[in-house]
This record gives sequence, C-alpha cells and structure tokens, in this order.
Amino acid sequence: MLQLSRSQIEQIISTDSGAAAAVRDAYIAICDGRANVPPVGHIAFPEAHGDCHIKYGHIAGDDIFAVKIAAGFYDNPACGLPSSTGVVLVFSARTGQMEALLNDEGYLTDLRTGLGGAVATFALCRPEARRFLIVGSGTQAYWLARALRHLAPGGVELSLWGRNAGRAEALAARLGDVRVARNLETACRAAEVIITATPATVPLIRAEWVQPGCHVTAIGADSPGKQELESALVARADQRVADMLSQSLDHGEFATARAEGLITAADCVELGAVLAGSAVGRRRPEDITLADLTGVATQDIAMARTVIARAKAGR
Amino acid sequence: MLQLSRSQIEQIISTDSGAAAAVRDAYIAICDGRANVPPVGHIAFPEAHGDCHIKYGHIAGDDIFAVKIAAGFYDNPACGLPSSTGVVLVFSARTGQMEALLNDEGYLTDLRTGLGGAVATFALCRPEARRFLIVGSGTQAYWLARALRHLAPGGVELSLWGRNAGRAEALAARLGDVRVARNLETACRAAEVIITATPATVPLIRAEWVQPGCHVTAIGADSPGKQELESALVARADQRVADMLSQSLDHGEFATARAEGLITAADCVELGAVLAGSAVGRRRPEDITLADLTGVATQDIAMARTVIARAKAGR
Repeated sequence: MLQLSRSQIEQIISTDSGAAAAVRDAYIAICDGRANVPPVGHIAFPEAHGDCHIKYGHIAGDDIFAVKIAAGFYDNPACGLPSSTGVVLVFSARTGQMEALLNDEGYLTDLRTGLGGAVATFALCRPEARRFLIVGSGTQAYWLARALRHLAPGGVELSLWGRNAGRAEALAARLGDVRVARNLETACRAAEVIITATPATVPLIRAEWVQPGCHVTAIGADSPGKQELESALVARADQRVADMLSQSLDHGEFATARAEGLITAADCVELGAVLAGSAVGRRRPEDITLADLTGVATQDIAMARTVIARAKAGR
Repeated sequence: MLQLSRSQIEQIISTDSGAAAAVRDAYIAICDGRANVPPVGHIAFPEAHGDCHIKYGHIAGDDIFAVKIAAGFYDNPACGLPSSTGVVLVFSARTGQMEALLNDEGYLTDLRTGLGGAVATFALCRPEARRFLIVGSGTQAYWLARALRHLAPGGVELSLWGRNAGRAEALAARLGDVRVARNLETACRAAEVIITATPATVPLIRAEWVQPGCHVTAIGADSPGKQELESALVARADQRVADMLSQSLDHGEFATARAEGLITAADCVELGAVLAGSAVGRRRPEDITLADLTGVATQDIAMARTVIARAKAGR
C-alpha cells in the first residue's frame, strides 16, 4: 500500500497544468454521467466545536475510487493544531483493495479548490479581464491566487480584501505583488473578476457593486448557513453556473435566491456542461457571470488519481 | 499515528470478555442516547460485481470516533484475493486528528459480529440451553462458534448446518468438537438455540421447525434482499429484538413481516434496552425469542476503541 505524507504530496502535485486538467475533467464528469457520487456523509461534534465530512465516489473508467475524510475542529488553533485536517484513502475499483493512504492534511482539498476556482473563472470571465479581486485572506485565498497566476492565459493583476486587515497584509506579503484593498465596495467596483473565499454567513458582496462584464466566482459556501453573495446579485447575473446544481440550490449561493423566488433551477447551468461545450457560459462582453462552487467528490478523486499515477511513475 | 496490521490486531483482540463487554456496551449506546450514528454510506460497482459500505459514528464520552470502510468484491476469489476487505480509521473526537489506521482486512467486523451474535444470544436464550445450531459455514459461522464457546456461561454443544456440505465439514474440522447436521429441519427441531449466519435471500428457517423455548439469532440479513427466517417465524415469536430497529424494519429480518402486515414496530424492542434492563427479553421458558442483528457502527467504534486502548497500554 502506498503511503504519502503531506510534504511528499506537495512535491508531486501543485497548481500545475496536469492537475488543472484533472480538475477540469472532474467537473465534466459530474455532467456527462460518469460520476457516481453518493451524498456527502456528515457527523458533528458540537461540544468540541468540530465536524467531519466524508466525500467519496467513483468516476466511470477510473481504476480507483477515493474516500476523503475531512474534519474541521475550530478550537484547534488555541492548542497549536490546524483547524482543518484531512486524509484521502484510495481503493481499487476492480477489487476493493486499499491502494493508498494520502495523509495530505487537507492539502489536496485546498489545492483542488484553488484550481477549481481558477478553472471556473477562466471559463467564464472575459478573455481580456486582468483586474482580479480575491475576497478572503485564508488558506483558500492563497491557493486561489497561486492557481490564478499559474493558469491565467494572459496574466492577472491581483488585489486582495480581507475582513481582517492584518491577515490580508500577511497573505499579500506571502504571495508578493498583490495590492491590499482597503474598501470592499471600491475594490468590487474596480474589479473585472471577483472571487470570494470566506466562511461568511452574511453576504459580503452587494449586487450594485458589480460592474457589467464582471465575473464572480464564489467558493466559500460549502454548507448550510454560509453565504457570500447578496441574493440580488444572484438574481441580477446574466448567467449562473454551479459545479453541482443540486448542491448549490440546497446549500450554496443559489439557495437563498431560489428560496426567495428570484431564480429557479432552470435559470442555472452546470460548469461541466459549459466546459464540455454543451451549455453556454458567457454570452456577451457586458454580461455578469456567476460561478458557485460547493465542492464535489469528483475533484478529490481526480486529485487522488493524479497523485497516484505520478507516484507510480516515479515523479 | 498508530498503524496496525491484521496480524497485529489479531494479537490484541479476540473473543475475549473485554471485547464482549465493549460490544455489549455498544448495543446499549444505541438505545440510551449516546450514539451518533449517521446513515451508512454506500457505493456500488456493478460492473466489477462489488460494493463498498462506510459506517461511522461517535459514542458520547469517547475520545475517538471511527470510520469503517468495508468493500465486498465478489469476483476476487477467482484471482486469489478475499472477497471482503476493510479498514478502520480512528480520529480524535476532540481535535479531528487521525490517530490510527487499523488495516484489519475485515477481521474486526467478523469479530464484532461473532461477539454480537453471542452477546444477543446469551441475553435471550434460556439459561439452561445447551444444544446450539449454527446455520452457515463461512467466516461468520466460525467467529460465532468461537464467541459462543468463549462466552457461554454453562458450555455449549455445537451443531452446524451448511448449504454446502463440504464447507460445513471443513469448518467443523477447523473448529473441532462440532457435529455436522445433515438435515436442516431435523437440526432445527432438536435445537434450543439457532443462529443463522448466511447470505440467504430466500428464507431457510420455517416457523414450524422452531420448538417452544427456542431462541433464534439471525445475523445474515444486513442489506435489502437478504432474508434467513420465514416471516411466519417472525410473526410467531413471543419477543422480537433488533440491534437497531429502524435498520431491521428497513432491510433486516423484520422488514418482510412488517411489509406483510404481520408485525408493527411496536411489536419489537431493541437489544440495548434488554441489556440495560429497560425492556424485557425472554418472559417465560416456553417463549420463542428472536434477535435480528443488522450491524451498527457503534460496534465498530467499540472495537476500535478497545484495540487502541490496548495497543497504547502495550498489550
């Protein structure tokens, strides 16, 4: 059985084009019938201020299937531990034998979420867009910035806004060549692309702050109660794209807008269909486009498959 | 992180009284509000003739929670692999950190199922019962026999019946001091306790074969489509006991009888309540009692907790 530590996995996979291609295919697999993705398992530990999610599934044609167990225990930093942890188990889809333990401590989730945000963004923003605003100053904002820079067809000018100014400054220093925005409204009005990566439970981005032609990708809302975009913005968008529509309408950015009667499922498309060319993303330069990414196990499978293939090939 | 192989785990835990006590407590935890057991996860691989179940949960008060991933790929024996495999992951319930990988290859499931069958049986059979019939000749029958012998307060006289006579003979030889029954009806009529451990999908045990005073434990039916006992036997029993009533009524031995209108949920009790003394099991010597065990994650948690505690204590 292959066992890889976080540092070993970091050597094998990063924001590279092969990893991005795997994430892109993982979105398409959701739409073309290849994905077998059961509902996410969940168990809560309210007394310890923690929870655990189990994402698992199989993509038809793959030799492997993957089970990701990711926990968030939010009092951990007080005792010197990261709040998020994770491990990915890989099994043969032909014999059920365990093939690998990827003790990535959540790295692969951070990576695939960053890559996924970049893939979705470049599929929907105007090709000439350069002024990118990242909203958030955590781990996810870091990986988003790295993925955007690696995958940008024409370069990006990055700005960053965080609710905690000190954290935003620290992240900007870590990334280098990033401007820290002082005012979120001003920053949004100036942005050609806005990407939100916060655990906000009260919407941060107002509809009137977003200019015609702008693209917005929201990656923070991954469970009930989280919301980064005002529902009026969801309603105002000319195209709404979800990684998995059922999840987005249940607990993602499209949920509130639907609950308020502003949109229906028919007003949205899935990212995989846009990537595969079977649905239209951006129609006109002046359109506001919106991508909501809630996270799907196919991305975890794609990461695991890529890591294992590269490890076996001796990379 | 602690890692233990199957052979290491076999050295740590077997059909011993500490393990039985843990299994017994795991049944009680289902009934007394301590268990947090989400629905079992499932993914099927029809082309490979395989499936995978994910059982997980937490018992209030435990420092750990466990996730068991068990796969069955039924063409494996043709290529020299066991059809069942499994692994148990153990995490801190305080920080979410992964604490142990128990690569038990299904051993802990076999063991806890055998122990659970024995615990349920001795809680419900007449104290003076000695003539025990095991129906089945597979791995589960083996562990049942071992657990019955280790835990019997007053000794057991074991008989065995299997649909495959050769396998039954082989298992009897492996166990030693077991009589192989040639005719199932005759064997049932002579038995004071009957325990079924088969993957039967057509009932094996007829109602009229079971004598007054007999206790029957059924452990085979763990998923839809499986059934070992005629529904008339379920209807005829004086007491019906399930490890988890919701599972038994959904896909265990009580499901068909309820679907046929022969029983209702109110006609059944849970084993944990009997063990804790809050429900009555056997009322009279001449009663026919019935236990249906579908398998619950609390048992897997109890096994994992016991293994880890013993490993840490240097046993």
